[in-house]
Amino acid sequence: MWNPIDPLKLPRFAGPVTYSRLPQTHDADVLILGIPYDGGTTFRPGTRFGPRKIREASVLNRSFNPANNQTPFKKINVADGGDMEIIPISIERTYEVIDQSVAQLYQSGKRGLFLGGDHSITLPIFRGISKAKGKNSFKVVHFDAHSDTGDQAWGCPYHHGTSFRRAIEEGLIKGTDVLQIGIRGPLTDATNLDFAKAAGITIVTFDECMDLGIKAVSQKIQSFVGNSSVYVSLDIDSADPSIAPGTGTPVVGGFTAHDLQRMVRSLQGKNILGSDVVEVSPPYDVADLTSLLAANLSFELLCCY
Amino acid sequence: MWNPIDPLKLPRFAGPVTYSRLPQTHDADVLILGIPYDGGTTFRPGTRFGPRKIREASVLNRSFNPANNQTPFKKINVADGGDMEIIPISIERTYEVIDQSVAQLYQSGKRGLFLGGDHSITLPIFRGISKAKGKNSFKVVHFDAHSDTGDQAWGCPYHHGTSFRRAIEEGLIKGTDVLQIGIRGPLTDATNLDFAKAAGITIVTFDECMDLGIKAVSQKIQSFVGNSSVYVSLDIDSADPSIAPGTGTPVVGGFTAHDLQRMVRSLQGKNILGSDVVEVSPPYDVADLTSLLAANLSFELLCCY
Amino acid sequence: MWNPIDPLKLPRFAGPVTYSRLPQTHDADVLILGIPYDGGTTFRPGTRFGPRKIREASVLNRSFNPANNQTPFKKINVADGGDMEIIPISIERTYEVIDQSVAQLYQSGKRGLFLGGDHSITLPIFRGISKAKGKNSFKVVHFDAHSDTGDQAWGCPYHHGTSFRRAIEEGLIKGTDVLQIGIRGPLTDATNLDFAKAAGITIVTFDECMDLGIKAVSQKIQSFVGNSSVYVSLDIDSADPSIAPGTGTPVVGGFTAHDLQRMVRSLQGKNILGSDVVEVSPPYDVADLTSLLAANLSFELLCCY
Amino acid sequence: MWNPIDPLKLPRFAGPVTYSRLPQTHDADVLILGIPYDGGTTFRPGTRFGPRKIREASVLNRSFNPANNQTPFKKINVADGGDMEIIPISIERTYEVIDQSVAQLYQSGKRGLFLGGDHSITLPIFRGISKAKGKNSFKVVHFDAHSDTGDQAWGCPYHHGTSFRRAIEEGLIKGTDVLQIGIRGPLTDATNLDFAKAAGITIVTFDECMDLGIKAVSQKIQSFVGNSSVYVSLDIDSADPSIAPGTGTPVVGGFTAHDLQRMVRSLQGKNILGSDVVEVSPPYDVADLTSLLAANLSFELLCCY
Amino acid sequence: MWNPIDPLKLPRFAGPVTYSRLPQTHDADVLILGIPYDGGTTFRPGTRFGPRKIREASVLNRSFNPANNQTPFKKINVADGGDMEIIPISIERTYEVIDQSVAQLYQSGKRGLFLGGDHSITLPIFRGISKAKGKNSFKVVHFDAHSDTGDQAWGCPYHHGTSFRRAIEEGLIKGTDVLQIGIRGPLTDATNLDFAKAAGITIVTFDECMDLGIKAVSQKIQSFVGNSSVYVSLDIDSADPSIAPGTGTPVVGGFTAHDLQRMVRSLQGKNILGSDVVEVSPPYDVADLTSLLAANLSFELLCCY
Amino acid sequence: MWNPIDPLKLPRFAGPVTYSRLPQTHDADVLILGIPYDGGTTFRPGTRFGPRKIREASVLNRSFNPANNQTPFKKINVADGGDMEIIPISIERTYEVIDQSVAQLYQSGKRGLFLGGDHSITLPIFRGISKAKGKNSFKVVHFDAHSDTGDQAWGCPYHHGTSFRRAIEEGLIKGTDVLQIGIRGPLTDATNLDFAKAAGITIVTFDECMDLGIKAVSQKIQSFVGNSSVYVSLDIDSADPSIAPGTGTPVVGGFTAHDLQRMVRSLQGKNILGSDVVEVSPPYDVADLTSLLAANLSFELLCCY
Repeated sequence: MWNPIDPLKLPRFAGPVTYSRLPQTHDADVLILGIPYDGGTTFRPGTRFGPRKIREASVLNRSFNPANNQTPFKKINVADGGDMEIIPISIERTYEVIDQSVAQLYQSGKRGLFLGGDHSITLPIFRGISKAKGKNSFKVVHFDAHSDTGDQAWGCPYHHGTSFRRAIEEGLIKGTDVLQIGIRGPLTDATNLDFAKAAGITIVTFDECMDLGIKAVSQKIQSFVGNSSVYVSLDIDSADPSIAPGTGTPVVGGFTAHDLQRMVRSLQGKNILGSDVVEVSPPYDVADLTSLLAANLSFELLCCY
Repeated sequence: MWNPIDPLKLPRFAGPVTYSRLPQTHDADVLILGIPYDGGTTFRPGTRFGPRKIREASVLNRSFNPANNQTPFKKINVADGGDMEIIPISIERTYEVIDQSVAQLYQSGKRGLFLGGDHSITLPIFRGISKAKGKNSFKVVHFDAHSDTGDQAWGCPYHHGTSFRRAIEEGLIKGTDVLQIGIRGPLTDATNLDFAKAAGITIVTFDECMDLGIKAVSQKIQSFVGNSSVYVSLDIDSADPSIAPGTGTPVVGGFTAHDLQRMVRSLQGKNILGSDVVEVSPPYDVADLTSLLAANLSFELLCCY
Repeated sequence: MWNPIDPLKLPRFAGPVTYSRLPQTHDADVLILGIPYDGGTTFRPGTRFGPRKIREASVLNRSFNPANNQTPFKKINVADGGDMEIIPISIERTYEVIDQSVAQLYQSGKRGLFLGGDHSITLPIFRGISKAKGKNSFKVVHFDAHSDTGDQAWGCPYHHGTSFRRAIEEGLIKGTDVLQIGIRGPLTDATNLDFAKAAGITIVTFDECMDLGIKAVSQKIQSFVGNSSVYVSLDIDSADPSIAPGTGTPVVGGFTAHDLQRMVRSLQGKNILGSDVVEVSPPYDVADLTSLLAANLSFELLCCY
Repeated sequence: MWNPIDPLKLPRFAGPVTYSRLPQTHDADVLILGIPYDGGTTFRPGTRFGPRKIREASVLNRSFNPANNQTPFKKINVADGGDMEIIPISIERTYEVIDQSVAQLYQSGKRGLFLGGDHSITLPIFRGISKAKGKNSFKVVHFDAHSDTGDQAWGCPYHHGTSFRRAIEEGLIKGTDVLQIGIRGPLTDATNLDFAKAAGITIVTFDECMDLGIKAVSQKIQSFVGNSSVYVSLDIDSADPSIAPGTGTPVVGGFTAHDLQRMVRSLQGKNILGSDVVEVSPPYDVADLTSLLAANLSFELLCCY
Repeated sequence: MWNPIDPLKLPRFAGPVTYSRLPQTHDADVLILGIPYDGGTTFRPGTRFGPRKIREASVLNRSFNPANNQTPFKKINVADGGDMEIIPISIERTYEVIDQSVAQLYQSGKRGLFLGGDHSITLPIFRGISKAKGKNSFKVVHFDAHSDTGDQAWGCPYHHGTSFRRAIEEGLIKGTDVLQIGIRGPLTDATNLDFAKAAGITIVTFDECMDLGIKAVSQKIQSFVGNSSVYVSLDIDSADPSIAPGTGTPVVGGFTAHDLQRMVRSLQGKNILGSDVVEVSPPYDVADLTSLLAANLSFELLCCY
Repeated sequence: MWNPIDPLKLPRFAGPVTYSRLPQTHDADVLILGIPYDGGTTFRPGTRFGPRKIREASVLNRSFNPANNQTPFKKINVADGGDMEIIPISIERTYEVIDQSVAQLYQSGKRGLFLGGDHSITLPIFRGISKAKGKNSFKVVHFDAHSDTGDQAWGCPYHHGTSFRRAIEEGLIKGTDVLQIGIRGPLTDATNLDFAKAAGITIVTFDECMDLGIKAVSQKIQSFVGNSSVYVSLDIDSADPSIAPGTGTPVVGGFTAHDLQRMVRSLQGKNILGSDVVEVSPPYDVADLTSLLAANLSFELLCCY
């Protein structure tokens, strides 16, 4: 079992910058994998620096989570698997790289926690997992301000707002297996969510979350997932822009950090097949707030693996 | 009816920077008008850049608000009316410019949504509306950390902390027609709110808002306004400084973005005569948080016009 | 009685930068004292600039607190006592300076409100007070993300994470007299809180605070303190990093400013012996948010003296 | 002839944000055209926001250049032509858009001054001009830290480091017609400049510029251009990173602003066919330094049209 | 003779923030006086915070200048005289305050070094000195990017671009006694400098300074001043924006810090009647570069008193 | 021979963050070693993050230096040796760690290039080298704004301003073997350089450098070093604050990046025994300017090994 570097031996501001100060190796059961691709971004770019900065912030991650009594690095063998060799200028070729890397990972019985990058990366992750595990093999819990079920943009079929639509269209997942939490904000027009609705996606809007309360939403998540395998896709813009300023498409009025922590913790005991934390754009971050949040929420996710 | 530039034709990071990517023209029923005046500021200046930066952030505004099912640009003809020709060095002459511009606007049957600038601009807006509509012709809902019913400062009768006092003194509005929401923070001395109380202003302090809950406050707003015409003045420092750092007189401990969104939405169905969003000071902003908030809240206001 | 400089005589952006624009003198009953020491810091340094920047932000402090109807500068004689002559490179010698300064202060019947600096300064403050008032002479209310009851680091017995352990070990305070509010976040390992538990410290974790509600926590504070003398130690990282980004060891998911204001106000009527506001690190701050928060919370503390 | 908005009528912080406060129209002889494309970037992205921020900084541009006694807006009819409708996710389709737009522009007898965007845009500009004017119809003066004559990256033939190689390979320009000024900094390997040398490009490295002095380099530029038509491509990273921090691939040790101003002014009296100012990346800028520089240098270029 | 606080007794990050850590008192021969007025600003405001931030940066000032072997605090009695009680909202009343304060100062035989504030403050300083010393009693050396001899703006006769014109028109100084160094940048139109030329002002443009070299310019300054009394007005925007980003009207391409140091040092041995350092706008500063520069140049000026 | 990761295989924004993307190992002839200690700092702290951020910036380093035709990674075997296990709270114990690590390194025939940390680390580096190579075994070229030959501060014998004095007093180096380049700025008093002068240190002040020209200074460096072994200590504050804002004790008016590059290159062909780049304080940096400069200058140093 890999362990973080002992902070009493080497202070947290010293030593190599890997995820949670774990070794960088593929010899582990769960790999933290960076996918520094931002070519699918429609507004502010910069998520290509997401994995690097989340790792840097994760030196403050520790090993024991008193909130749910978990010590993930004693329970599972986790390592930093480095970054995938994406192609900054080609979304199609990047999709192939991700798809194959993920397929190999899962075919070898390992699981991934993926650090984006923009949300366009979730589609090839789903393709890769599906190759290893079969289609419709998992449910999806998706935290986001946006439903990401849009169609093409400027004639381009793939971008960071289409992943869930394409995954359903490609038969990788079923719309009825997707739970979207925290969707909010104005839309281009009133038909924007038609695909999501037609596909049977369950949407709990941010307003509904506030009305229900985070505890009730957490229970909704738990009952939705049940005993199924689940993939968790966490777009950092689910948080309010003041909590996560470093993102590409900020939407005013969102979750606090604690809201997200509590909802993620509700997945404790579930069968996590994989997860991602995406849309962290360091050039727009302030005081590393967004990277710190992503480092923490990815650790909270790990505690549920 | 004017429409925002289609983001699938020209990405949001491209094209002219107008409010919500609407045309700049006075040929519309509701005009977004910038009033880039900060000469009435007593501490940190910079709101003269407010209109410019709110417009820039508003390129992320969209057209359909699922929170209350509104598509304002289909309901009313809205355009960006540009900026008023204020005089940076003279509050008296600036007041004349604003007063006349607003009077003309309302005399022609149009309405305005004004982007400040500091809060001193609300007084000449009231003067102008009163010329067109008559005195005591509207109620006021005022979101702010400060009551802005102070007296002169350094011998100057007008500044950003006096607008509501002067408006009442000049007979433009009645104190009993003013509802102030979210007033908070230490005061120079215990007599600071004496004018407001004597004038019959209804103050719901921030502490009271938290005790009542935002839903109850929203109902208070609705019943206060009733069937009257209402002017909404939204000082961005009603939000917590972490939510709206770019402002001149920050007061620790205020509303979240969602609190403000919900309270503004409570005005849906009311008879909005006009509104302003003021005190956005871009030199003090971080990650455009304050401009984004102002762009969003002004859109939420528009949805109620 | 000292009074802040009149803002209508000299605007808040002008004049000397002292705490709340009070005179700098030791001739007062309560002294605001800076302790600009950050040599006990284990991650991000910079709190040596805390006192300077909190003073700068405090020019926005005013005199009357409508939240609890207090006018502290009319009730007690408060002045800015300047900064202690700490030794940046030696924690041992700095501890002597603080200890002696605090002992003299309390022996002369005065009280202090201390602006840090990192949390290592609380131990010598306790030593100094104990010399004047005797051991076990006060209870402690401690707002923090961290329990600060850790042991040595890199062989160094004193640092910013040990103050409360050492104070108990030295017999200055009893563990059962310590109430810690808001502890949260992952720990190095599951034994980290063993000392605190064994010593009888009462911990209300952040999760518990959220479950109980701030009003219930406030009542807990009031009943814990009772009629005893109490020292309040407020680590600014008790606030969420988005509220207080300028701190050395940020922990994702914490209090809002209003939460902290309400809990501090619950001490109204108690017998405050002293207090500190620590861990404000200006080099990491944005838009002076953290300094403004510390300036406000120290004023709220003063209102309870 | 179009004129900037009179700053004594509407202050520079007010009014629409167009290049030099000129009207936005295609009815002019020289068009300032934004090309907000950064998909060809290999390191730090963000130049998609270049045109917007250069325009914003250009509100400080004025009309008369005393350094060379030019009043460009009285000499030629200049307008802001807006932004091209680039495709953020496809370099190939973006190239088509640029190529066609530029070809049309020059076929109609107009000239462009193009605001990038990354340096990949210069290739399709050359394609477009060549369609209108013929191949090998102009010389090139290229200010840059990088020669931009590299080959493919990750299998992608086009990116921001290949434009001049591809232009020569496609026969649009001759290597011997290219003068590169200010090339500097370490290279991936010793063969990096082999293409440039073989193609006959004249390189004056930054070290050589410093040894010769800016006046001598200016004379070199003048004699190189002679009576030919010339296209000027100005990569903002030719400036030192402290002068132009907001760029994607900073290279330590470069020109001052005044160096660049003097070299650009040496083109006065030459036959400028077109020009670009590229690689301004606002997310990495500080205090708008880079945008201000680009706004000024583009004005200096205009003075030579 | 007043002395700075000993940094070996109290570190520079501790203790009160006064100019050069000198006492704040009017009992001295030379007073450093803040004039935190920015109401005469035509573009970016914020210089009202100039005196505060220059003082803060000046804690790094020391006592001995090896460049010209001066120890000013041993030669003359210098103190921090605090800030003048300016009226933020009225340029006319502010002018009266400055005028009277300066007249009193000089009538009592003292001299001032004034920290702005915007450049509009130089006119009432000249009025005040003239009352004490008579009209035409001193020459002026003026470092600036702008000549500041413009006429009214928006009908306002006074602003930060008119001081030298008005001073000449009011007969306070003669145009032929004014030397302007470093004027640069585009102008609104070709007639902008007509007043300066007609009045006989000697202008050495920035381009001329670069052609002559700083040593030759320094000699020009020395011979221009001769044995006369001289007032030195140093606008921080004489420096390049990369050196002094925190200013209101940045002009690309200016002096380095060392250029300015050398030119100021050329005044050694001259009869300095007074001086100002103006246009430092902290909200636009980065890393305190501009405040540090102003703190240093004001110290260099002091060394010449 | 170790090689940087191929940027055409893995983009520079991806992959592990080691110095120049070299492997992290001690199996090499020259080791880049971080010493993240800032406990000896007297003003602004933060250099403990220097090694981490210099490494991050060094991903832009490449392999071939056309300025002097060097390919260091083909000439010598270089690796990133990681960070030393310093003790943040104890300068004495940190000195022991550094001393022993350096002694072992040089005893094994390897050489180091050390990334600070503050300048206090140079003393134990000298101690370690002296153990391996003997006392007085090398000359020193020291680029700095400060002579760093001060005595104790606050009774502490060691801090970042004493290293060269102590090294001479301890007999590790001879004063006559030390060349200090670029010393500038005001001093506490006129006796500050007495030790340096008495010890026979050769100082070329910044003013002298500007008068002589960088080429002449470079020749001075070459002739001073001759055939001796030489250690190069480069304090980043030798650069002007606008070039290197991220440092603890900025001194206005210093070298450009190109000045420093040229002087470092003058060491080509010399017998470099070791070197350091110190005083990079990332919390005060803007746009990574200072880290980029340090990454580049350390590469320029490597080219001379």
